[in-house]
Amino acid sequence: MKKDERASASFSFTLTAEDAGSFARRGIFKTPSGVVETPNFMPVATYANVRALNSSQLTASGVQAIISNAYHLILRPGREILEKAGKIHAFMNFKGVVFTDSGGFQVMSLSSLRKVTEEGVFFKSHIDGSSLFLTPVSAIESQRIIGSDAAMVLDICPEFPTDYKRLADQMKRSCRWAEQAKKYIDENPYEKQQVFGIIQGGSALDLRAESLEKMMELDFDGYAIGGVAVGEPKEEVKKVTDFTSRRLPREKMRYLMGVGFPEDILYSVSRGVDIFDCVAPTRHARTGTFYTMKEGKINIRNAKFRDDFEPIEAECDCFTCKNHSRAYLRHLFKTGDSLAGQLGTIHNISFYMRFMKTLREKISDGNFSSWSVKTAEIFEK
Amino acid sequence: MKKDERASASFSFTLTAEDAGSFARRGIFKTPSGVVETPNFMPVATYANVRALNSSQLTASGVQAIISNAYHLILRPGREILEKAGKIHAFMNFKGVVFTDSGGFQVMSLSSLRKVTEEGVFFKSHIDGSSLFLTPVSAIESQRIIGSDAAMVLDICPEFPTDYKRLADQMKRSCRWAEQAKKYIDENPYEKQQVFGIIQGGSALDLRAESLEKMMELDFDGYAIGGVAVGEPKEEVKKVTDFTSRRLPREKMRYLMGVGFPEDILYSVSRGVDIFDCVAPTRHARTGTFYTMKEGKINIRNAKFRDDFEPIEAECDCFTCKNHSRAYLRHLFKTGDSLAGQLGTIHNISFYMRFMKTLREKISDGNFSSWSVKTAEIFEK
Repeated sequence: MKKDERASASFSFTLTAEDAGSFARRGIFKTPSGVVETPNFMPVATYANVRALNSSQLTASGVQAIISNAYHLILRPGREILEKAGKIHAFMNFKGVVFTDSGGFQVMSLSSLRKVTEEGVFFKSHIDGSSLFLTPVSAIESQRIIGSDAAMVLDICPEFPTDYKRLADQMKRSCRWAEQAKKYIDENPYEKQQVFGIIQGGSALDLRAESLEKMMELDFDGYAIGGVAVGEPKEEVKKVTDFTSRRLPREKMRYLMGVGFPEDILYSVSRGVDIFDCVAPTRHARTGTFYTMKEGKINIRNAKFRDDFEPIEAECDCFTCKNHSRAYLRHLFKTGDSLAGQLGTIHNISFYMRFMKTLREKISDGNFSSWSVKTAEIFEK
Repeated sequence: MKKDERASASFSFTLTAEDAGSFARRGIFKTPSGVVETPNFMPVATYANVRALNSSQLTASGVQAIISNAYHLILRPGREILEKAGKIHAFMNFKGVVFTDSGGFQVMSLSSLRKVTEEGVFFKSHIDGSSLFLTPVSAIESQRIIGSDAAMVLDICPEFPTDYKRLADQMKRSCRWAEQAKKYIDENPYEKQQVFGIIQGGSALDLRAESLEKMMELDFDGYAIGGVAVGEPKEEVKKVTDFTSRRLPREKMRYLMGVGFPEDILYSVSRGVDIFDCVAPTRHARTGTFYTMKEGKINIRNAKFRDDFEPIEAECDCFTCKNHSRAYLRHLFKTGDSLAGQLGTIHNISFYMRFMKTLREKISDGNFSSWSVKTAEIFEK
């Protein structure tokens, strides 16, 4: 038995269809917690909950996987509570697959509260000012306690813009950290979790190539493309996605972090990406921006919806569309109750899941490219 | 056929059991929108929604009736939208009985924004400053448009404290308004809605007696006891409830407005009250105060719950108790997502419904008084 097979006994990633006209591919990611059909989209569950959505609404929406965040979970509820609870699935009562990011993104997003050294990242807690020191090894240990099915190595997500010299330094340090993480994993094997390496290097393709080579040499279970969609122009995101995704090993899962809108997903899938996460559907839902297949995004606060008694989408079979009109939803947003966010999130997450399901079917049917062009137009308006 | 029977063809209120040791009574209020078993409790749905709760959660919690508010609905979404929607039940998709308050409470709660004259109340909208003039007749007309099953006459809910002279003047004006409302109703009969008279008079029992006599003379479909629980000591509320409730006609429904906590409900039911409303269970839910039969109220933010993996109440079969632990709920309140309020509201409303169901059964079984004493002790702690 090869090392890879041993370490992944209870996990597998199998491609089931590949598009003739693009690099789009369909697959199945099997884990002890369930199956993820790819391409797929993970709603963001930073604190072990998808905002405004309860566990049964999550399942009813067709969600197969979510992504949580180790940095935030370490601070709240803390490793001790998660250890006592069993694992994150039990803690939040989610019957599906859980990914966790390591905290590398918070190196960027909480930049005023952290100090990066060669050993790791000192965070000053954004909640109570207490200290947290995250190292490549402790990030893995923490994610084992959290019990996610797929963990990310600790990395440094660069801010945009960052100059070439600094981008290179941060990428090289991320590679050294990944090496330390891999060494720990090899010495302390753990069959219940896969670990993804993260490709960094900003928009500099030579740095991406170097990061990619190093990560592939370390041979992770899957690969994430990190540090995109952090403020750079969309064309840069596309360039990096195109360059990186297709160079990753065919048989392993590819995760594009923090992307995106439907049109971004369509492009990235065409470049071979398998899984995505983004706050867009949940955050938009709470401000009244809803996704539809025919009209693209609509803002329910618009006056034209005040006497529109149709559902958000007639074709949608989510709870919100089956039970409530646009006029009622607009009213809830106007009066400002959290029920507005709840009903909006149910729809947007259901939309994303339906969108990904259709996308997968189009890959199998060989119609991905033509459908993709047509669909992207609706959302790029 | 007597006038009363004609006007109430599709409505009926029938007593099915009376307690031997108190004035507690059990009954059934039949309406075209469904049945309300009394004594019962109405969650507050001011803006045509119970805060944080969707329509299926409302039904799953066992809610048979809710109370909305004409003043607020007239401002948002407005009579035109409600008229187009059909009625409030259709607008919010609630399959149950809807009561509406007239706006009399807002005479008190929005006192800086209104001017009361003999003709009615001028409100300056708390939303956009526009004017709204509510008269005894327009309050009824509006509630017909809203389409509630039970409407309240326009009244003046006095602030606490209010001196005797002013209390008397306001009560007398409320009586004159009730007379105008009744005249309009008699001249414009409408079989789809019952109208309740409201007894006012503050804590002055002679004024309560006068109000009561006048309202009974006008012969409304049911009677509300208004102007209690507005800041006066609990003993005053009890005194007024005791005095007023038992003097109301036995065969008509008695509604104690704005009450209350479980212990208040127990007392008031023992004085013959049939139906209640209060923001307590929903508002408390959003701040982490949960109701339990064994421990009374608990605050889930308390540190002792951080590693308590039991449900709020083991006996409760609400979605929250069946699916989530106290530790997880505490975590949600600490991180501050609206899901905390959603799950908390599901529990508190389910608790209130279970509490009222048990109370009704105790009346039928003849054990109301002993159960009531024991139960009140838990909540008065």
